[in-house]
Amino acid sequence: MSTATFVSGPAGAAPRRVPSAAPHSREDCAALDTADPLAARRGRFELEEGLVYLDGNSLGPVSTGARERLRAAVDGEWGRGLIRSWNSAGWFELPERVGARIARLVGAQPREVLVDDSTSVNLYKLALAAVQAAGGRGRIVTEQGNFPTDLYVLDGIRAVCPGVEVVAVPREDVPEAARAGAVLVLLTHVHYKTAAMWDLGALTRLAHAGGGRILWDLSHSVGAVPVDLHAAGADLAVGCTYKYLNGGPGAPAFLYVRADLQEGLATPLRGWMGHAAPFALDDEYAPAPGLRRFRCGTPPVLALTALDGALDAWDGVEMEAVRAKSLSLARTFRALVDARCADRGLRLASPADPAACGSHVVYGHRCGYEIVQALIARGVIGDFRAPDLMRFGFPALYLRHVDVWDAVEALRAVLDSREYDCAEFARRSAVT
Amino acid sequence: MSTATFVSGPAGAAPRRVPSAAPHSREDCAALDTADPLAARRGRFELEEGLVYLDGNSLGPVSTGARERLRAAVDGEWGRGLIRSWNSAGWFELPERVGARIARLVGAQPREVLVDDSTSVNLYKLALAAVQAAGGRGRIVTEQGNFPTDLYVLDGIRAVCPGVEVVAVPREDVPEAARAGAVLVLLTHVHYKTAAMWDLGALTRLAHAGGGRILWDLSHSVGAVPVDLHAAGADLAVGCTYKYLNGGPGAPAFLYVRADLQEGLATPLRGWMGHAAPFALDDEYAPAPGLRRFRCGTPPVLALTALDGALDAWDGVEMEAVRAKSLSLARTFRALVDARCADRGLRLASPADPAACGSHVVYGHRCGYEIVQALIARGVIGDFRAPDLMRFGFPALYLRHVDVWDAVEALRAVLDSREYDCAEFARRSAVT
Repeated sequence: MSTATFVSGPAGAAPRRVPSAAPHSREDCAALDTADPLAARRGRFELEEGLVYLDGNSLGPVSTGARERLRAAVDGEWGRGLIRSWNSAGWFELPERVGARIARLVGAQPREVLVDDSTSVNLYKLALAAVQAAGGRGRIVTEQGNFPTDLYVLDGIRAVCPGVEVVAVPREDVPEAARAGAVLVLLTHVHYKTAAMWDLGALTRLAHAGGGRILWDLSHSVGAVPVDLHAAGADLAVGCTYKYLNGGPGAPAFLYVRADLQEGLATPLRGWMGHAAPFALDDEYAPAPGLRRFRCGTPPVLALTALDGALDAWDGVEMEAVRAKSLSLARTFRALVDARCADRGLRLASPADPAACGSHVVYGHRCGYEIVQALIARGVIGDFRAPDLMRFGFPALYLRHVDVWDAVEALRAVLDSREYDCAEFARRSAVT
Repeated sequence: MSTATFVSGPAGAAPRRVPSAAPHSREDCAALDTADPLAARRGRFELEEGLVYLDGNSLGPVSTGARERLRAAVDGEWGRGLIRSWNSAGWFELPERVGARIARLVGAQPREVLVDDSTSVNLYKLALAAVQAAGGRGRIVTEQGNFPTDLYVLDGIRAVCPGVEVVAVPREDVPEAARAGAVLVLLTHVHYKTAAMWDLGALTRLAHAGGGRILWDLSHSVGAVPVDLHAAGADLAVGCTYKYLNGGPGAPAFLYVRADLQEGLATPLRGWMGHAAPFALDDEYAPAPGLRRFRCGTPPVLALTALDGALDAWDGVEMEAVRAKSLSLARTFRALVDARCADRGLRLASPADPAACGSHVVYGHRCGYEIVQALIARGVIGDFRAPDLMRFGFPALYLRHVDVWDAVEALRAVLDSREYDCAEFARRSAVT
């Protein structure tokens, strides 16, 4: 069984405007921006003039919406409202209210998504809930090289539940391992390093065929590619809000539980905010009806509020348009790198077909770390992931084709000028 | 064995200035404020003119430090620094750096406290880590009527660990139950309803005599009363930062693990930020050395930054001075209530001796809910806890004796005018 069958798929709606070859000039890129239906969204963000920010896949930039909403919450809701704002400003319902705004972006119903705690903590809640619902034992299947926190969370579950076995298999063996039977399959939809994208529906069907549930990590998907959890029949999901959703550093994460599964799942992290009647102050735990049972402690009000403001930039935006633009940006970047940075030691580390990828692209280079530092010094911000990978993200709401042009020009200049210093790399290589 | 032996104790350092009887006038109260060595600290906070805020034990007010630090983080660190601020602004070390500032307030070493996640989540981490270190089975002892989240968290652990038994005993039986043997004793140092305070050292010794560890919930203690975890020999602790520490609504919580225990404990919530080498991106989990292993996912940077700014108000403040003032405020309140609100149906629900209490005081009244609402309408903010309790908190950094005078005058006026409406209460009473 080949992985190829299960990647890409229907999520890659055909973009309306794809450069057939590399633009010949910055003016060509500017023309693409003029025709961009999302161009005006850039005005929602407060980006420094001259900076090319290709790391929105790691931390999205501040928006006017987030900044003003947070300021209003600090000055008005906290400052003047004080404790009264739990009711008057609707703090209690923030996790559900903000979750409902994200639901639309991942093909879920409003009452199936809430925002609270971190991605790691939410992974723990849902993975252990699924395992407990299946008797507290069995095999969990995941992918080798999955984002570390996903693997570590499963390690924590294995350590607590002696009957649980965690099997991480190479990417190409994941479909067969899912089909062969697992109580839970945990996959990251878009790979954090390579950007390779699983077929959400196909893998979900395999997990179900294997008799288990599937838990999707959408951290590099939400706001990056169209996701339809309901069409896929997905059971559970989590995702990050500080990347493409621009919620701010360390913004709380979302979790999704399909409506028909909610009453049958019990969270291991039982806190007062997930109780059926938080203010009855009963000694006995009783889960809230529906999704609220997956809340735990007091929600992070200020961070939720910043995220709420950040989500204003998504109002009226369809994910198909976002995908079309980010594919256009990524294809432009790839074509320009091919045309202008050839024979300089770069190795494409993402799948060859942009439609099989999320919204970032990755190149390897033996001096990857140093090149990323030299680019940052020139005002082009990407990031580095061990051992030698350079990541460049293409969020559609604020990035332009001229930014892509400028980034590739900077990359070429860095590679040609040898501004980067490989001495440190060479030293490390000699040791290992 | 009587509970009386184990409450209060050395934490209640003798205040320098205690009214021997109720002040006769607002001027008497103003004179106490003039002599208050902490009086200037009120200027750090942005409190609405005319408002009497007696609910800092639930949510502390905004300080200029918190507001300005947060704004600088949003505009500068996030807005301009973007992803670079993980290094340049020290975001990675925020949990430890802010934790070190709190350590001083609870008698811990800087490397024994970190701030991350919620109180509930931290309770789960530490309680389950302690149980797992003892073989994953055994009895956990706690108090009936403990704050609900403490009880619910233990219920979640019991549900995952079949060998764990959770025993909640009446307050008066806690000392004997701890001594009789438990793998873990979980107690809240200052009771959230009554303000009754355990003797930290005595209960810790009993838990150790019983062969187990003790986990203290300091949510109503930190910033309220002197706490010396080291002098007490305490093992583990958690606490809230949005009450007396004024970190903002839903601010992240702290956790404490005594230095010599850190290497022997494994957290069940394993995330990438608690890994020995977070950016090696290894598939295999390996706990960070020391306390950092108890971090989990990406930390809540904005919320941590607000808290960091809020803690400026504590610089140079000794907890003995805080205790002296809050005892003076509470004694003034009690004396004025006795003198001016007698025979109006109020029932003291806190221990009779203020030195046996934390920094709030609680009265019961059959129309408690309605009275609290009427007080809020008059600009005096306390809170209500089921079934009939009115809580009034006396944080020392910003509250004045004249506020206490005004609060009691408002309470008397409400009680005498019958502004509160007991119809709803009567209806509910008739049903149950």
